[in-house]
Amino acid sequence: MDLPAILARIVAEMRDAPDRGAVARYIPSLAGVDPARFGIAIVTADGDTFMGGDANIGFSIQSISKVFSLTLALGKVGDRLWERVGREPSGNSFNSIVQLEAEKGIPRNPFINAGAIVLADVNLAGHLPREAIGELLQFVRYLAADDSIAIDEAVARSEEQTGERNRALAHFMKSYGTVQHEPDPVLGTYFHACAIEMSCRQLAQAGRFLMLGGRHPEGGNVVSARRARRILSLMLTCGHYDASGDFAFRVGMPGKSGVGGGILAVVPGRASIAVWSPGLNPSGNSQLGGLALERLAEATGWSIFGH
Amino acid sequence: MDLPAILARIVAEMRDAPDRGAVARYIPSLAGVDPARFGIAIVTADGDTFMGGDANIGFSIQSISKVFSLTLALGKVGDRLWERVGREPSGNSFNSIVQLEAEKGIPRNPFINAGAIVLADVNLAGHLPREAIGELLQFVRYLAADDSIAIDEAVARSEEQTGERNRALAHFMKSYGTVQHEPDPVLGTYFHACAIEMSCRQLAQAGRFLMLGGRHPEGGNVVSARRARRILSLMLTCGHYDASGDFAFRVGMPGKSGVGGGILAVVPGRASIAVWSPGLNPSGNSQLGGLALERLAEATGWSIFGH
Amino acid sequence: MDLPAILARIVAEMRDAPDRGAVARYIPSLAGVDPARFGIAIVTADGDTFMGGDANIGFSIQSISKVFSLTLALGKVGDRLWERVGREPSGNSFNSIVQLEAEKGIPRNPFINAGAIVLADVNLAGHLPREAIGELLQFVRYLAADDSIAIDEAVARSEEQTGERNRALAHFMKSYGTVQHEPDPVLGTYFHACAIEMSCRQLAQAGRFLMLGGRHPEGGNVVSARRARRILSLMLTCGHYDASGDFAFRVGMPGKSGVGGGILAVVPGRASIAVWSPGLNPSGNSQLGGLALERLAEATGWSIFGH
Amino acid sequence: MDLPAILARIVAEMRDAPDRGAVARYIPSLAGVDPARFGIAIVTADGDTFMGGDANIGFSIQSISKVFSLTLALGKVGDRLWERVGREPSGNSFNSIVQLEAEKGIPRNPFINAGAIVLADVNLAGHLPREAIGELLQFVRYLAADDSIAIDEAVARSEEQTGERNRALAHFMKSYGTVQHEPDPVLGTYFHACAIEMSCRQLAQAGRFLMLGGRHPEGGNVVSARRARRILSLMLTCGHYDASGDFAFRVGMPGKSGVGGGILAVVPGRASIAVWSPGLNPSGNSQLGGLALERLAEATGWSIFGH
Repeated sequence: MDLPAILARIVAEMRDAPDRGAVARYIPSLAGVDPARFGIAIVTADGDTFMGGDANIGFSIQSISKVFSLTLALGKVGDRLWERVGREPSGNSFNSIVQLEAEKGIPRNPFINAGAIVLADVNLAGHLPREAIGELLQFVRYLAADDSIAIDEAVARSEEQTGERNRALAHFMKSYGTVQHEPDPVLGTYFHACAIEMSCRQLAQAGRFLMLGGRHPEGGNVVSARRARRILSLMLTCGHYDASGDFAFRVGMPGKSGVGGGILAVVPGRASIAVWSPGLNPSGNSQLGGLALERLAEATGWSIFGH
Repeated sequence: MDLPAILARIVAEMRDAPDRGAVARYIPSLAGVDPARFGIAIVTADGDTFMGGDANIGFSIQSISKVFSLTLALGKVGDRLWERVGREPSGNSFNSIVQLEAEKGIPRNPFINAGAIVLADVNLAGHLPREAIGELLQFVRYLAADDSIAIDEAVARSEEQTGERNRALAHFMKSYGTVQHEPDPVLGTYFHACAIEMSCRQLAQAGRFLMLGGRHPEGGNVVSARRARRILSLMLTCGHYDASGDFAFRVGMPGKSGVGGGILAVVPGRASIAVWSPGLNPSGNSQLGGLALERLAEATGWSIFGH
Repeated sequence: MDLPAILARIVAEMRDAPDRGAVARYIPSLAGVDPARFGIAIVTADGDTFMGGDANIGFSIQSISKVFSLTLALGKVGDRLWERVGREPSGNSFNSIVQLEAEKGIPRNPFINAGAIVLADVNLAGHLPREAIGELLQFVRYLAADDSIAIDEAVARSEEQTGERNRALAHFMKSYGTVQHEPDPVLGTYFHACAIEMSCRQLAQAGRFLMLGGRHPEGGNVVSARRARRILSLMLTCGHYDASGDFAFRVGMPGKSGVGGGILAVVPGRASIAVWSPGLNPSGNSQLGGLALERLAEATGWSIFGH
Repeated sequence: MDLPAILARIVAEMRDAPDRGAVARYIPSLAGVDPARFGIAIVTADGDTFMGGDANIGFSIQSISKVFSLTLALGKVGDRLWERVGREPSGNSFNSIVQLEAEKGIPRNPFINAGAIVLADVNLAGHLPREAIGELLQFVRYLAADDSIAIDEAVARSEEQTGERNRALAHFMKSYGTVQHEPDPVLGTYFHACAIEMSCRQLAQAGRFLMLGGRHPEGGNVVSARRARRILSLMLTCGHYDASGDFAFRVGMPGKSGVGGGILAVVPGRASIAVWSPGLNPSGNSQLGGLALERLAEATGWSIFGH
């Protein structure tokens, strides 16, 4: 398989793609990003790295951070997490409050906003907010083996200023006891996690442990093989909001998207892949990111559903 | 891997399982089935067959037939099918009508009842109902390479007599134009598909083409490799009603369950597996069937999310 | 109070009204009605009749028939009716099926389609469909003291041909046992009730018993005073689908509308009023009919909320 | 009509009523109230006052305050209020957030919690929270002609401490722009309004302007006759949460209930009535309060639907 050629072809195709989606506008820092950007990075199980386009430019990982928050939260409370968060696709948009009311304050899964707010609540236990944020950042740096990864404070502040809907979710779950700390510090932790900035290269590196059955490529286990599989299953069934089924259908890889335009996709035993293009489709997932992964899956046969 | 020993252990464990779920009672033919039954059959990619328990006893495949109806319907209308049926997990129970109203008569996916009624509508085109039923039965016999497979007419009649909810779904979709024929013959076709009777051995045989990238083990392609992958992705995200996420999380295999207590699970490139135990959990999926597949996945490493 | 002058002014204003709404198009017989039509008839408690515009032209009373079906059904089963139908405003559109699923097959009130199908089921008991239809027609003739009132068979047939949504509602309720007869004859009864044709004059006459505390103006009680009050309360809270609150707010009279463009409004102790103009507002209620009643209430002080 | 005798009979019947409902427990100050309490006060259009039971004991008026907040808000912004709040019955429980999401942040009516939070937002404009609270309290004192009416600060504090659900509603509406101020001061205003303490006698006095077509009995107009009618129509269609239809059906008077166990009911031109009994039925309305008003309506013929 000639990955460099495949990547070059995809980058060229994406450069000329007419329908690039719409850049998220809800916070100024995101709205200003150039819609022409496209980057891709692949780390294979052998440890080789392949890159194309704007693979070294940082972007706001937004909801992709939920994968790392989930891994951290499972490390803290294990399967007791599932008493407070479900693991079913939601059937609703990422910030819907309807499902929460019907299901007594238990978010459907950890990858919708309400679920990730519960993750922040779990990760906050015994910490000051800035300690919890620091711990998550350190964890991501360790996964990516890159200490230069940082939080974009301007994005975090913007999230706080426009986060009324997330505030509503947090208070709503507080009323049910699903959120246990005060909503304000929980949300502070949540907003900072969303504001982590990474490049495709860094993100693909951070996803390696999921490709490797939970092992850190530099030694030791991040999580057990079983937990790695389970995180991947959640990415497949819930990783693209209410278009998760469509992503599984078209791409066939566990993946998690963010409104910054990034997607982290993992093929167990094969590859950890990050793509980025800031324009979003109506479901809130990167338009070209999804298309690029579809092309990559076709060219490589990297689908968990056979090849 | 010593599959016979693994199967023997699972059969023994299931024999003694205290919580066997509750047998479906909505039609007399199903209610009378012995809850002590448990069967399992595995056909590997090499063509070997392994069986345990009541693997040769026929049962009503019910919603598992939706996999075969979907394959047939895709063969008839191709991707135009997706104009009339979605491919997202539903977030609701299998016979809910709420989602249908919110989404203008388009069922969320082909594996909820409303979706499978659309499949029946597609498969009825140009046929009398008994021809459409005959065609589906022939297709299943061909997949399983077993001409003894038949429809249990008593079950089909019972379905018709108690099918008011499905009748409501059909008329509702007719009002939106999603269903195009008269509801009565469409439902007749649908009820007969549910009433197909198969053993675990026959069902595992019928699932081989999905394990083999669309190829029939005796030669030729049933569907393209790409279509096989896509059918498997739908089984993973939508195959267990509103417990599909949980099944993916615990078992990690694409699977489709039926209220008769059967489950067809497929590991691409590895195995086609059928289990059967008539007691259901509250989500309507076989209680011991799911548990047995979880044990099998642990013992064999057969998960699409890594091993 | 100079009712003739008030009516003349209203008729003149309605003749020139620029926004007349849109005529219902779902069946051909309704779609062909002239949108320029406007009629009004008032029968006072003294027995005087005042008319304006097209008060003697027949139109399809559609959902207004639900008032008469309810009165008849209460006569047959009394308060046991409320075990099968609620008496709360629905918060949803007239033919929504969502509420039915959430509330286990019990329609919210007798004036949404699902509720009126239950009324038809009650009124069918012990009858052939044509007997039940005949009984309702006789009852309406008796109330209006006018034997010329008839059913428009073309409308009834059109309703049957386009009634898939109502068919869905009936089968859905049959699955819960709220509907007890076979859906087909129940729907036949329902569709014929909707197809009764009356003029404003006839309709205002038929509403007199509600103005008079249950008494028939020609002697005897149609219902008890208490039942008359209760029917009026249902008209006020549920008589205009999901715009009932707005009608109460603007007009302040118990009223029931139909998609044929008619409204029956009753001021207890004062007046029985019928208006008709075929153009509907987005909520499915007569645009000019509602406006005319608002004007009438302002001019006469006929509001049940004070004057 | 012998009102003293009627009241005496009702008080005796309520004293012995076996099913008294359950006292609200969500805040300590309410949970401690004696469930044996029952009071009733009637002020007639002539200015006579009749009382029975615990008519002079203060209780927390809770949601009844929404009537006064609405009157005040209409005085400030007039019909522009209806751009931010609907006037339809909700079909959901008093603190549901589902409807808000479906209808883009516009509460269905001013008498559900979300609607009353918008009223607080309107009444806060140009004020500090304590000024807005002071203005509402002064307004209620003026209506009741009783300067001893006060806010129970312990109740207000309890509301604040347990108000996560209302906080969620406020932030949710803030995200839509329906709430314009910061949620914290809006909620402070809202919680204090709920914590006003009044006796039945005071409450019946405060309701006189609605009985009198908007006139203050001591001279001048509180609101226009038309606005008084409209407030009464909202009380009838929306005043008892999702049991408003049932209250209209059984009692036939515009009324507004609160979880403190009070109900204010008004018969235009006849009577302003307050009842209080702290036990609630499952819909959150006073069990004996509703029953007492039903008995009163039967004995007096005071129904707006005829007598």
